[in-house]
Amino acid sequence: MRAVCVIGLGLIGGSVLRAAVRSGRRSWGATASEEDAAAARAAGYEVLPSTEEALDRAAAADALVVIATPLPAVGAVLRQVNRHAPTAWLTDVVSVQEPVLESVRESAPAARYAGGHPMAGTDRSGWDAGSAELFEGALWAVTIDGSTGLDAWREAATLALDCGALVVPASPAEHDAAVARISHLPHVLAAVLASVGGDGGPLAVSLAAGSFRDGTRVSSTDPDLVRAMTEGNRAALLDALDDTLGRLGAARGSLASTGSLNSTLRSGYLARAGFEARGEHEPVRGSVPLDAGHALRRLREIGESGGRVVSLRGDTAVVELPPAPEESAPEE
Amino acid sequence: MRAVCVIGLGLIGGSVLRAAVRSGRRSWGATASEEDAAAARAAGYEVLPSTEEALDRAAAADALVVIATPLPAVGAVLRQVNRHAPTAWLTDVVSVQEPVLESVRESAPAARYAGGHPMAGTDRSGWDAGSAELFEGALWAVTIDGSTGLDAWREAATLALDCGALVVPASPAEHDAAVARISHLPHVLAAVLASVGGDGGPLAVSLAAGSFRDGTRVSSTDPDLVRAMTEGNRAALLDALDDTLGRLGAARGSLASTGSLNSTLRSGYLARAGFEARGEHEPVRGSVPLDAGHALRRLREIGESGGRVVSLRGDTAVVELPPAPEESAPEE
Repeated sequence: MRAVCVIGLGLIGGSVLRAAVRSGRRSWGATASEEDAAAARAAGYEVLPSTEEALDRAAAADALVVIATPLPAVGAVLRQVNRHAPTAWLTDVVSVQEPVLESVRESAPAARYAGGHPMAGTDRSGWDAGSAELFEGALWAVTIDGSTGLDAWREAATLALDCGALVVPASPAEHDAAVARISHLPHVLAAVLASVGGDGGPLAVSLAAGSFRDGTRVSSTDPDLVRAMTEGNRAALLDALDDTLGRLGAARGSLASTGSLNSTLRSGYLARAGFEARGEHEPVRGSVPLDAGHALRRLREIGESGGRVVSLRGDTAVVELPPAPEESAPEE
Repeated sequence: MRAVCVIGLGLIGGSVLRAAVRSGRRSWGATASEEDAAAARAAGYEVLPSTEEALDRAAAADALVVIATPLPAVGAVLRQVNRHAPTAWLTDVVSVQEPVLESVRESAPAARYAGGHPMAGTDRSGWDAGSAELFEGALWAVTIDGSTGLDAWREAATLALDCGALVVPASPAEHDAAVARISHLPHVLAAVLASVGGDGGPLAVSLAAGSFRDGTRVSSTDPDLVRAMTEGNRAALLDALDDTLGRLGAARGSLASTGSLNSTLRSGYLARAGFEARGEHEPVRGSVPLDAGHALRRLREIGESGGRVVSLRGDTAVVELPPAPEESAPEE
């Protein structure tokens, strides 16, 4: 099994290090946070004194390097990768993929890179918030663009599977557009809802119950971490915000003019029903041969249609696709 | 203990009937839903064949009548109250209070009325979704306006306390403004988020995780029930929507121009921290004599400042107030 070198040992990086060790891989890390380093060492994990030393060892061991820092720190780490382990197997766990890809092209062009983003987290951050089980059953996007090598993709996807996740192949742009809507936008809306609720004063805060608690939950995440991911996905998030302002303005207009929120509420109800129905039906299993010329293109199509890779066996990816919509019963 | 007559046996009304019986009160109900009536009877509760018969019995027993129908049905029930139990003790459990008060003034002006709204619920609806425990530890607004009688307020508040809730005194207008922000707005935002996420297609729906799940949870509520409460609170909800559009537009503008979401995220983080801190500190206990001329005004001030009534003993309301903000430690 390929060794793993994790740079950044916060919630996600720390969980990757734990899960990699649990899967039987030789693994070590490095972090700029003395607090995270001390906590990881106290838990028995190997933390090298510097990123450089961790990368030197990665080069010697032909390890897979995992960049697990916030987006603003990625460029500096990549320049270190280029100096100490220029042709390393390389992935990341950053929540925005296009900027990381651009940064890799600029700063570590010889690295054998495929980006990654596990869809898992908690409201808390830092080493102590993580666990080896964080990724169990979670989805983990592993990105594919025109320059991705099949071997590099496979290394990143295998780590995700070893951590207990299911792999969703996607292009960096598609990934970023999707997470703008289902991860970054929810953080912005939660913050706005929390503020508008708080503006209602002590009575409103006192009466707030389940709908407010759930709607604002993620606004308790460290604002600096949320800034790093949302601001790093500016173009896609602006697109999602414009759609939101459009729909919310239409709701406001309809309520003011006709008194009705029917269209807004019914659309939301149906969209949520689609989300809830994701896991209801048995998925269709299939396989993709990984030696074919079009393997990566086929994998990306599977991700786009809502499918995922559940295992990599030999030269085959075992995939699950959402079932085709049910046929209507024939009329009598 | 005063008998209780519940009109409407869905989630909330059905839970009130169960909790009233559990508290030892003689209680019965009526509902236009044959399904709810059958389920309540099967569970051993007394459901009269019609609202008229339930109200006739309420008049004979000097019972407290609880209106637990959706807002659009309240007017018709009040006209029946005026015919069959015109001077009844009367409260309601409707999520918007000013329209109910206006309707009472118009259709059942002799009723001894104080409005009520328990801050409890689930995503599901109907008798089967309810339970006697639904209100345990929940807040229950009992409204006070210029025409509220202390005796009527006390009847409604005692029922809420008997159901296991804590009572928040508030004017109908203050109540409606508060719930627009912390209950109705969350439903509209959840619906909009669900739609914008769904617009992202199968990849977005597939990648959606905790932040999307929590942010859209209440969009799975029956849209007709959400319409009844949100559309019934039009003016206050428009005000909350305008604040939301303002804050969201400012976030969009800041992200587009400077690339920063700092102000939006930090405001939301602080507002959520205020919400989370609600229960952290030991509240200050106090009491309000209920025979004083200004008892209702004092109770309303307590609700406005985030306090609640925890019991009514003899002629005294025992209240809890949020602790005063901590003094800063003196500088050395």
